[in-house]
Amino acid sequence: MTTRRETDSMGAVEVPADRYWGAQTQRSIGNFPIGRDTFVWGRSMIRALGLLKLGAARANRELGELSALDDTALDALEQAAREVVAGDLDEHFPLVVFQTGSGTQSNMNSNEVISNRAIEITGGQMGSKSPVHPNDHCNRGQSSNDTFPTAMHVAVVLDLHEYLYGPVGRLRDTLDAKAAEFAEIVKVGRTHLQDATPVTLGQEIGGWVAQLDFALAGVRHAEQGVLDLAIGGTAVGTGLNAHPAFGALCAAKIAEETGHEFRQAGNLFAALSAHDALVALSSALRVLAMALMKIANDVRWLASGPRNGIGEIRIPENEPGSSIMPGKVNPTQCEAMTMVATRVFGNDATVGFAGSQGNFQLNVFKPVMAHAVLESIRLIGDACGAFDEHCASGIEPDTERIAAGLERNLMQVTALNPHIGYDKAAEIAKKAHKDGTTLKEAALALGHVSEEQFDAWVVPIDMTHPREAKED
Amino acid sequence: MTTRRETDSMGAVEVPADRYWGAQTQRSIGNFPIGRDTFVWGRSMIRALGLLKLGAARANRELGELSALDDTALDALEQAAREVVAGDLDEHFPLVVFQTGSGTQSNMNSNEVISNRAIEITGGQMGSKSPVHPNDHCNRGQSSNDTFPTAMHVAVVLDLHEYLYGPVGRLRDTLDAKAAEFAEIVKVGRTHLQDATPVTLGQEIGGWVAQLDFALAGVRHAEQGVLDLAIGGTAVGTGLNAHPAFGALCAAKIAEETGHEFRQAGNLFAALSAHDALVALSSALRVLAMALMKIANDVRWLASGPRNGIGEIRIPENEPGSSIMPGKVNPTQCEAMTMVATRVFGNDATVGFAGSQGNFQLNVFKPVMAHAVLESIRLIGDACGAFDEHCASGIEPDTERIAAGLERNLMQVTALNPHIGYDKAAEIAKKAHKDGTTLKEAALALGHVSEEQFDAWVVPIDMTHPREAKED
Amino acid sequence: MTTRRETDSMGAVEVPADRYWGAQTQRSIGNFPIGRDTFVWGRSMIRALGLLKLGAARANRELGELSALDDTALDALEQAAREVVAGDLDEHFPLVVFQTGSGTQSNMNSNEVISNRAIEITGGQMGSKSPVHPNDHCNRGQSSNDTFPTAMHVAVVLDLHEYLYGPVGRLRDTLDAKAAEFAEIVKVGRTHLQDATPVTLGQEIGGWVAQLDFALAGVRHAEQGVLDLAIGGTAVGTGLNAHPAFGALCAAKIAEETGHEFRQAGNLFAALSAHDALVALSSALRVLAMALMKIANDVRWLASGPRNGIGEIRIPENEPGSSIMPGKVNPTQCEAMTMVATRVFGNDATVGFAGSQGNFQLNVFKPVMAHAVLESIRLIGDACGAFDEHCASGIEPDTERIAAGLERNLMQVTALNPHIGYDKAAEIAKKAHKDGTTLKEAALALGHVSEEQFDAWVVPIDMTHPREAKED
Amino acid sequence: MTTRRETDSMGAVEVPADRYWGAQTQRSIGNFPIGRDTFVWGRSMIRALGLLKLGAARANRELGELSALDDTALDALEQAAREVVAGDLDEHFPLVVFQTGSGTQSNMNSNEVISNRAIEITGGQMGSKSPVHPNDHCNRGQSSNDTFPTAMHVAVVLDLHEYLYGPVGRLRDTLDAKAAEFAEIVKVGRTHLQDATPVTLGQEIGGWVAQLDFALAGVRHAEQGVLDLAIGGTAVGTGLNAHPAFGALCAAKIAEETGHEFRQAGNLFAALSAHDALVALSSALRVLAMALMKIANDVRWLASGPRNGIGEIRIPENEPGSSIMPGKVNPTQCEAMTMVATRVFGNDATVGFAGSQGNFQLNVFKPVMAHAVLESIRLIGDACGAFDEHCASGIEPDTERIAAGLERNLMQVTALNPHIGYDKAAEIAKKAHKDGTTLKEAALALGHVSEEQFDAWVVPIDMTHPREAKED
Repeated sequence: MTTRRETDSMGAVEVPADRYWGAQTQRSIGNFPIGRDTFVWGRSMIRALGLLKLGAARANRELGELSALDDTALDALEQAAREVVAGDLDEHFPLVVFQTGSGTQSNMNSNEVISNRAIEITGGQMGSKSPVHPNDHCNRGQSSNDTFPTAMHVAVVLDLHEYLYGPVGRLRDTLDAKAAEFAEIVKVGRTHLQDATPVTLGQEIGGWVAQLDFALAGVRHAEQGVLDLAIGGTAVGTGLNAHPAFGALCAAKIAEETGHEFRQAGNLFAALSAHDALVALSSALRVLAMALMKIANDVRWLASGPRNGIGEIRIPENEPGSSIMPGKVNPTQCEAMTMVATRVFGNDATVGFAGSQGNFQLNVFKPVMAHAVLESIRLIGDACGAFDEHCASGIEPDTERIAAGLERNLMQVTALNPHIGYDKAAEIAKKAHKDGTTLKEAALALGHVSEEQFDAWVVPIDMTHPREAKED
Repeated sequence: MTTRRETDSMGAVEVPADRYWGAQTQRSIGNFPIGRDTFVWGRSMIRALGLLKLGAARANRELGELSALDDTALDALEQAAREVVAGDLDEHFPLVVFQTGSGTQSNMNSNEVISNRAIEITGGQMGSKSPVHPNDHCNRGQSSNDTFPTAMHVAVVLDLHEYLYGPVGRLRDTLDAKAAEFAEIVKVGRTHLQDATPVTLGQEIGGWVAQLDFALAGVRHAEQGVLDLAIGGTAVGTGLNAHPAFGALCAAKIAEETGHEFRQAGNLFAALSAHDALVALSSALRVLAMALMKIANDVRWLASGPRNGIGEIRIPENEPGSSIMPGKVNPTQCEAMTMVATRVFGNDATVGFAGSQGNFQLNVFKPVMAHAVLESIRLIGDACGAFDEHCASGIEPDTERIAAGLERNLMQVTALNPHIGYDKAAEIAKKAHKDGTTLKEAALALGHVSEEQFDAWVVPIDMTHPREAKED
Repeated sequence: MTTRRETDSMGAVEVPADRYWGAQTQRSIGNFPIGRDTFVWGRSMIRALGLLKLGAARANRELGELSALDDTALDALEQAAREVVAGDLDEHFPLVVFQTGSGTQSNMNSNEVISNRAIEITGGQMGSKSPVHPNDHCNRGQSSNDTFPTAMHVAVVLDLHEYLYGPVGRLRDTLDAKAAEFAEIVKVGRTHLQDATPVTLGQEIGGWVAQLDFALAGVRHAEQGVLDLAIGGTAVGTGLNAHPAFGALCAAKIAEETGHEFRQAGNLFAALSAHDALVALSSALRVLAMALMKIANDVRWLASGPRNGIGEIRIPENEPGSSIMPGKVNPTQCEAMTMVATRVFGNDATVGFAGSQGNFQLNVFKPVMAHAVLESIRLIGDACGAFDEHCASGIEPDTERIAAGLERNLMQVTALNPHIGYDKAAEIAKKAHKDGTTLKEAALALGHVSEEQFDAWVVPIDMTHPREAKED
Repeated sequence: MTTRRETDSMGAVEVPADRYWGAQTQRSIGNFPIGRDTFVWGRSMIRALGLLKLGAARANRELGELSALDDTALDALEQAAREVVAGDLDEHFPLVVFQTGSGTQSNMNSNEVISNRAIEITGGQMGSKSPVHPNDHCNRGQSSNDTFPTAMHVAVVLDLHEYLYGPVGRLRDTLDAKAAEFAEIVKVGRTHLQDATPVTLGQEIGGWVAQLDFALAGVRHAEQGVLDLAIGGTAVGTGLNAHPAFGALCAAKIAEETGHEFRQAGNLFAALSAHDALVALSSALRVLAMALMKIANDVRWLASGPRNGIGEIRIPENEPGSSIMPGKVNPTQCEAMTMVATRVFGNDATVGFAGSQGNFQLNVFKPVMAHAVLESIRLIGDACGAFDEHCASGIEPDTERIAAGLERNLMQVTALNPHIGYDKAAEIAKKAHKDGTTLKEAALALGHVSEEQFDAWVVPIDMTHPREAKED
């Protein structure tokens, strides 16, 4: 492997000649061989770092902070940052999550790559730090302590929009349409896993939609906090060495590049030393995951069977279910979803724990927090997409089973409460249960109601809503 | 013990003659001897059940749903409910958290107590269920499945206002005043636990205030979701047996009685089968607890010493610190606070887990969720009150130590970056560190700056904010 | 309220005249009004503190460390400690969990109470600290930093034996007996909630027993670590001021008093600064709780119905299930158990988090850790006792439903794999499912087997174990 | 892309011609596009599946279960499995964690790849399932429900030995050597972050070693449970279709191939429906991670500074610490370690939650549990390796600072307790603190001791162990 000599304040390091990164990135590769198979930063954080550096370069240029550079160098600097944004330089970002807790090395990775690429564009010599210096220019008015959390927030917001809102929203709409479609299908309700008074299948699914609406509103609310960027705080929140207008302007540039309403955070000390907005977002993702778990569980229980379960709905048969039991079909999309839910739950535990561990002017659990939140976003989005396409959109009622179940249900007795009181109604239900008869048979046998009364009062569809006002 | 015979749909049970509860409460005592020492429901849930029953009685009366009762009985019913609200009947609520997952037995406990107390008021015979029947009247248009979650929400909102907002807000204000008071005290900043560029003590404390403001806003936002009440859903969310106007009116009555904007939930199926609003609130409490952990940790580290720690602040000495080391004083309020934080963290894990486990029309983890959230509210509030009074309000800077620390700090070198570049500045810092000299000595020795330049550029107070715009 | 003047190194404090506690306890009451309703230490910790102080007094006496006291005073000291052990002085222990993180104030509470009670016995004046001084004698050779964790361990071990092993073991035995009783009842197996090849009900229940056996073995293994006591470490683990033989001898005395094999920990620095043995025990309790959750879930699903669920078993009807649905019976013991499981899960999160937060020579999350572990022990034990008595012992199969379910199950097709291969077997199952016929009808219609072959190969009872060796 | 037609019981699917996988793998790729960037199974699970299939092939062959195959086919089957073990076919395993919860598709992936590769070896036509059929031969006597958990256990045990024990053991040994090396360096102890009685640096580090020893013993104990394999349980635990000797023999073959004492689990129903041994192992890893967090925190606090922290030890300077603060060096290895700890904590939450969610004969959270445990193993191992090499091995005391700190420490006063009592000792310490004098000055000024006594009694080195027995 051909190498190139790169230097930092600790001295010289050999780096692969075909890579743009510099000394600090190379040191990090050697110092942090932790989870390299799966924890190298991916597109989301690299893009966000690129957006941050692009915004910073544009803001500093506008503010005259890079007056030491000529227009050629300035253009090269911006072009290099744009290439990072575009994904052209992803292979030059080799670092893993488990590094310095401030993300310094990933910040320097972006500085080094942009510096060297800009130098290359301008025809300079890589590693010379001239004309574009990784610290003095790429990192101008910045510190890892404010840039990395800025990039974290940018990555999270972009990923929410790119990966989560779409598929979760589509799943929500699919279920909403199913709720409308099945609005008239009356079936047994279940509480405590026991037969209860009737509901419509539409109502049942509508409850899921309401959960998703609540959870999505929570995520969108939490996103607002993540639009606040730490940029401008530099080393400790004071903004030392930054132009006083830099942070706000840089945030505005990032907003312009991305179309999201990013802005400088109101308190930069908190923005460096705590990541409570990320914890809050993680919590909102957990609420969403918990809602999805409830939904996926309901779906697989309602589809259980084929002959010895509840079997009120049918879901798509996507693959053979068993390597040993021929003909078996399983609710695999539900299983993938509930596994994702447990993962999101664990990620949230990580984020909450890490979020509590800041000291003084810095929380040094930034990378693990960012990674966990991004992972949760991606998994929820992906799982909802698959679940929507391969399961929810194919939910169909088994109307025969539903009707038969409703027919034998004893809990319609509840409709008699207002007429004969709870105690007599209980007597009827218990007798029917004991004798194995229908409710009506038991009711008539006990003489608590006449046949006409029973037929008038015990009407399943009427039990799926409060009684009509006119009745009163 | 004298007893009285009470009955329910399963038959007769002997209950203590001097207690208002009935058969189902008595059965629950026998069936659930789980954690009796500490898990009997307290004031918050009892009051909330009373408010719910009062609101229901008033709403049903207004809607003509209790026309079988005369005014005397109706008045007695309301009076009994008011006595539950007032706390006069707390000893008649003997049940524990770990019971039926719908809280049915606590709902029935309130029905039974109110029924018997109303009967007593009207001069009837306790246990006769006449004139006021626990199910047909006290529980009119209700089911445990909608009343218990309604009471959970009422209890949580009331406790937030009674126990949490006050002391947390006071702590916030105390810190805010300290931040203003110490706005001019320049001190060493710290990142990665290592010396960093200067901050003012006011800025440091101001970061804590910003965290509390963010967290409190999150709790208040989450409270909004908890104002939605399940009432009107009855058994499965359909509202069966309830007057169509009952749920909304009952919520309005509760709002009237409490002064909080309670309202019926938009989707009653979700309101029974999921408690995502509680999970979201628990998450918001966790964010608050995590912020408090950061603050308490900072306080005790800054106060560490007395001679071999950081010692930049002093906190009140409230008690002897050690049973063996004479004269030792410890940051005990910080310790109580951080222990509370770990408890809230665990409670939140319970709530999230439990919240995911609903099936069909019901989540049967209601009591454990309500209990954990109420416990977190109380602990956070109590701990903030104690911390405010016995610690935060007494924080004082040790200005001598602060000044001495700032004097020897090397990270003021950062102010030279814009003038001589990162690389030369690093050289100076490293030399001073190696030689054990001041920064200035090293800077002059290396010849990178003149004395005048050094004195003009390296001014700690100037490093606590972005440089003035005029400089540019 | 009459008061008495008590003093400590900070000065004088008025305490209630009828209480044995002294100045430090009184200060703590004022300084830590946190969760007083439910977080005052209970019997378990008080008894453990008593045992520790008794053991210490006996060890110090034997070693001549209390030679300043005469036999009368020494006897009084031991008697007072024995009264604490016996529970006679519980009302003199008013402190809460959320106090100093080392438990100093509870340690001093025990010192003060024992001192004053001993003084009283000897006819001295309470508060005089003479002849029995709370620090110099009761706390001789001790520090809160070693006594409190010692008491934590003693409390945990005693509670395991008093509250957990018994009821969990009884539940295990009940289920084991049920497994034997139902060993011949062949029923549908279920995987992915879908019908699968047959199992016996005995096998199903036997799996639960195996889980309990594994979990109990884990708890017993973890208990071994908790037998190690920190005593003898004094302030920082060095044993300063303790007689060199004190720690081991004190542990031996505690072992003698309790009948459990307590011993001094091998490394006293770790014993003060970390509580990993408690974390490990908490983890073992979590495994047990998770197993109980699986069992309780299986029980309630198998008992679901009565007409629209699985309904293969019946469980006792302990109370009316619904305040609105007459005749409804719910699996309430299962619900209490699964709620306990979520609580234990949360407690374990608290313990793990707190356990990670030690610094230098001390972990100051001792009280919250001890409390959470003791709570989990008690809840699991209580819940298992109730579940055993009110649910497990009454489990009965519904043999009719079981037989009918098995009859219509399609997954018996799996028995054909070795004879005709997976692909043809799948064809048969799919045809039967599609046509709604029996497996045999489909098999014969497709011609893959003869009737004789089918009858010989597809025998449910034969499918509940590996085929006989002779067949090979 | 050239494709090949592959079939399963649901019909035909086109797969890439250059891949060995078959129809079910291809379906899974389409159905589960969830987290593809980072959640494709890696070497550990692929190797384990290979070992399982190799063991199964060898066991079945020996038992005559594959008598339909000639020796050429049997050899090819084994060779193909060995190639999976060796890693030659990793690119033919494209599936992700979030799939069927039983891991069916990964089990089938291994069956399909081995089948086709064996067919290729024997010169047959891929996709023909002849002579080696994926279900009838590769999966002979197996089900995903027993093979996947078997592979999970095999992967976990192998990874423990390959990635964890080595580096954690080396870190332990490094620290143990440091403890011995620094056994005589007396320094200030710290409790509650406050100065306390002296310890040696060796004792301090020795406490860490004790924690690691405890945690490692816990992991090794938990590993014992993971040596139990589910193999032989087939679909539901009954062993249907397996030769009665198959499970035990297959486990023995795996043991033979790996050198680890794998054996068939005692209860196969529990082995399929619960993964408590994995939960227990995850818990043990959490204890280890929590211990590492304590150690890493201590290291970075002890190394804090350089001038305004504790600074009693120096750690290696591995990279520039800041992109803005020149010359700053940070405890980055500690930060990576503590971030890993929070990740392991979250993974454990996932595992515990998932482990509680089994139903009937199967727990369908297998893949997410296996993945989380494997990730924790790898991260802990990697982080310990890096921490050992780049941090722990370079820990050096700053003897000057240590001596100066000890000199000014007031807590040596504790040594006076046995001589003058706690109360007078407290008076001395408080006076010295208030006056800013040395302890000796205060002691003499108060007249509680003579100079000779003070010098004889207050000797820091003597305070690092219980007083000599002879003194008594």
